[in-house]
Amino acid sequence: MKFAVRMDVAIPQEMAEQAKNDLLAREKEYSQALQRSGEWQSIWRCVGEYANLSIFDVGSNERLHEILWGLPLFPHMRIEITPLATHPSDIALA
Amino acid sequence: MKFAVRMDVAIPQEMAEQAKNDLLAREKEYSQALQRSGEWQSIWRCVGEYANLSIFDVGSNERLHEILWGLPLFPHMRIEITPLATHPSDIALA
Amino acid sequence: MKFAVRMDVAIPQEMAEQAKNDLLAREKEYSQALQRSGEWQSIWRCVGEYANLSIFDVGSNERLHEILWGLPLFPHMRIEITPLATHPSDIALA
Amino acid sequence: MKFAVRMDVAIPQEMAEQAKNDLLAREKEYSQALQRSGEWQSIWRCVGEYANLSIFDVGSNERLHEILWGLPLFPHMRIEITPLATHPSDIALA
Amino acid sequence: MKFAVRMDVAIPQEMAEQAKNDLLAREKEYSQALQRSGEWQSIWRCVGEYANLSIFDVGSNERLHEILWGLPLFPHMRIEITPLATHPSDIALA
Amino acid sequence: MKFAVRMDVAIPQEMAEQAKNDLLAREKEYSQALQRSGEWQSIWRCVGEYANLSIFDVGSNERLHEILWGLPLFPHMRIEITPLATHPSDIALA
Amino acid sequence: MKFAVRMDVAIPQEMAEQAKNDLLAREKEYSQALQRSGEWQSIWRCVGEYANLSIFDVGSNERLHEILWGLPLFPHMRIEITPLATHPSDIALA
Amino acid sequence: MKFAVRMDVAIPQEMAEQAKNDLLAREKEYSQALQRSGEWQSIWRCVGEYANLSIFDVGSNERLHEILWGLPLFPHMRIEITPLATHPSDIALA
Amino acid sequence: MKFAVRMDVAIPQEMAEQAKNDLLAREKEYSQALQRSGEWQSIWRCVGEYANLSIFDVGSNERLHEILWGLPLFPHMRIEITPLATHPSDIALA
Amino acid sequence: MKFAVRMDVAIPQEMAEQAKNDLLAREKEYSQALQRSGEWQSIWRCVGEYANLSIFDVGSNERLHEILWGLPLFPHMRIEITPLATHPSDIALA
Repeated sequence: MKFAVRMDVAIPQEMAEQAKNDLLAREKEYSQALQRSGEWQSIWRCVGEYANLSIFDVGSNERLHEILWGLPLFPHMRIEITPLATHPSDIALA
Repeated sequence: MKFAVRMDVAIPQEMAEQAKNDLLAREKEYSQALQRSGEWQSIWRCVGEYANLSIFDVGSNERLHEILWGLPLFPHMRIEITPLATHPSDIALA
Repeated sequence: MKFAVRMDVAIPQEMAEQAKNDLLAREKEYSQALQRSGEWQSIWRCVGEYANLSIFDVGSNERLHEILWGLPLFPHMRIEITPLATHPSDIALA
Repeated sequence: MKFAVRMDVAIPQEMAEQAKNDLLAREKEYSQALQRSGEWQSIWRCVGEYANLSIFDVGSNERLHEILWGLPLFPHMRIEITPLATHPSDIALA
Repeated sequence: MKFAVRMDVAIPQEMAEQAKNDLLAREKEYSQALQRSGEWQSIWRCVGEYANLSIFDVGSNERLHEILWGLPLFPHMRIEITPLATHPSDIALA
Repeated sequence: MKFAVRMDVAIPQEMAEQAKNDLLAREKEYSQALQRSGEWQSIWRCVGEYANLSIFDVGSNERLHEILWGLPLFPHMRIEITPLATHPSDIALA
Repeated sequence: MKFAVRMDVAIPQEMAEQAKNDLLAREKEYSQALQRSGEWQSIWRCVGEYANLSIFDVGSNERLHEILWGLPLFPHMRIEITPLATHPSDIALA
Repeated sequence: MKFAVRMDVAIPQEMAEQAKNDLLAREKEYSQALQRSGEWQSIWRCVGEYANLSIFDVGSNERLHEILWGLPLFPHMRIEITPLATHPSDIALA
Repeated sequence: MKFAVRMDVAIPQEMAEQAKNDLLAREKEYSQALQRSGEWQSIWRCVGEYANLSIFDVGSNERLHEILWGLPLFPHMRIEITPLATHPSDIALA
Repeated sequence: MKFAVRMDVAIPQEMAEQAKNDLLAREKEYSQALQRSGEWQSIWRCVGEYANLSIFDVGSNERLHEILWGLPLFPHMRIEITPLATHPSDIALA
């Protein structure tokens, strides 16, 4: 079950450099583990913005929430979700 | 070069059934040719909306415009574009 | 899997009375069949608006889209979807 | 008398861990007491957001305000209310 | 139970003069009957707009919806509702 | 001359308890004096929000501004004004 | 008593040329009579838009509404009003 | 060449009283010098808001920017500009 | 004096093919004459939209309005204007 | 490949004067190097705002992102991007 998820990040400017680096390292590790498991299918940077557009492929709403809520950057993110379905023009259907 | 494109469709309610069916058949054919050539990388239906979210992979802005302007449904669409770049957490980089 | 769905209806004012009545009868029948099957869990009128707020309980995004796209009033609706998950304070968890 | 209430939470990032845990424990207890009494009929997490969608069933606007104003998290919430009425397609009417 | 209700009116420009006059006469009569019964407590014109701001005092959400849905101008209105409660500074409380 | 005024309040969370209580006491006293003089005709709490909807009846724009600018809570408010006029359906005109 | 009023005009494209010319002539005459009487103090075209920004100086909200409602173009306008007061830095006060 | 300029002011609440008074005195002096020279043609307070609507009459965009950028309150303002032209109904043209 | 101007076009779908072609030919001729004279400095298509972003270099607001008002497509456009000034980092200043 | 980029700047008011001057000097140097290399084709100040409108001419989305992400002021900017294509009325095509 696919979802498009846009995440806009705003890390507080007063966060100490070391704390910020640790946070970003944990975020990257978290994201890559889910990419490897196949649930975080794609991730792109939105050009010129501290934001990404991602495609998730998960078993349920509950699982998608669990993943997003667990993001190390979650407290510093605004998240927007678009549930997706198969498009009738998709050649994968043919 | 990747772009996320959201297309919202609003076909005029007074369009005749036959004209509409022809239009939609041409749209499907147009979309599938570009999917096969690899420029229209993904297309998903946005759940509960007459809209799709698509990923394009094209050589230039000019080419993306040429493709979108040529959509049979273009006169009945509202289109929103997000230019994409590689995300540093993408495992494809590793 | 739960979704909150808000549907705003705008029936064209030029639609003939009989066509409109038929359409609304079909909409009611369609909705009630899904309420009886348990997928359309709740439906409320939004006070003072030609709109409803509904809770759906379905197996997948695909199924939710199939239901909404099939609504007799779909061509006259604007639909907004909020995917839902269990809330940790829900007493049903206790 | 039913109301849909969406609550978006933004706890200040500088709040001490202990104060935050106490606050959240009081919020949960407050919510569950009202769920048990039947006035807070449903509560769902909005996927990927620090937000909930709830259905209240109360005797008056005054009572709804009293409940919301009393939420331990109220000073950290943005709240949006939709008054609800019975929908003519609701099978509970049949 | 009080509600502030703002109604914005947009009568189709193609409506015949006589039909429009009849409609407006019925609207006025309908409004004035409810003003006399006490449920439609106040009505003001919003300066420079085809709109009014009204205060209703009704027994329930159901009753408010019944009143608004029954407005002869309802199909030509956009309606926005704010549920009201007693304000602690109101001198009527003293 | 009537005006609808909506005031949304956001008191800084770091304000000391005593300062806040003094401020709120002065606000209440200020509001009630104007209610007694008849210029602040009505005040209601907007349900679930730290906001009020008020009706003022003043001699001029200048006077309305003087009143609002003088509110003890003014520096912590966002204010929205709708100038009102008599509505032709108002039974007070009959 | 001053008000800033922005008027955006959208004349239906199907209006006959003669009817449109008559309407615009009546609008001009109406506006100029009020400019001469001093109530319509200033009128400017908003560059690149079918819109004007005007300053009115009237005795009351009622009078402002009467003027605006009477505009020949009123049914084709969207109007936005900002009540104005004397600014403490205005040199006219010195 | 005329421009309508709306300035919304938000002075940081932590600014010391003396610093704030100095800033406001400089702002007033700056504004009044430009009013006397004729470039700042009008200034009105927006009722109930810490905002003004002003009309400038300057020789160029460059000059307008120079004036606004030099405002002592500029770092605390949000500014919105509407370029103006002569309106064909303006009686000054007759 | 520079202005950025964004023009969004919406030609009525019922316009006859010949009338539309004539209109577009006149628009092109009008635009190109002004490009040659140097007042319409740049024009770009906004990718995927029936819209352009243009830079104008004109002597006054009046002249900019005259140009835009005279566009053959003006009745079918929504226009948004940003007045521009020299940027202090512009290397043309060095 | 052209892009219009609008950058709105909000430097934290608590930043020390020296740090701010250094930052702005680095920003200017960075911008001017890219202007000289031809990738940052134009930069204008938006009148009355701490903002600029720029035209970039780059080889890819990746390169545009690299440039913008590297801006010394990037952490204090909100950036909005419009991909551009050749306009059929552009005289450069003739």
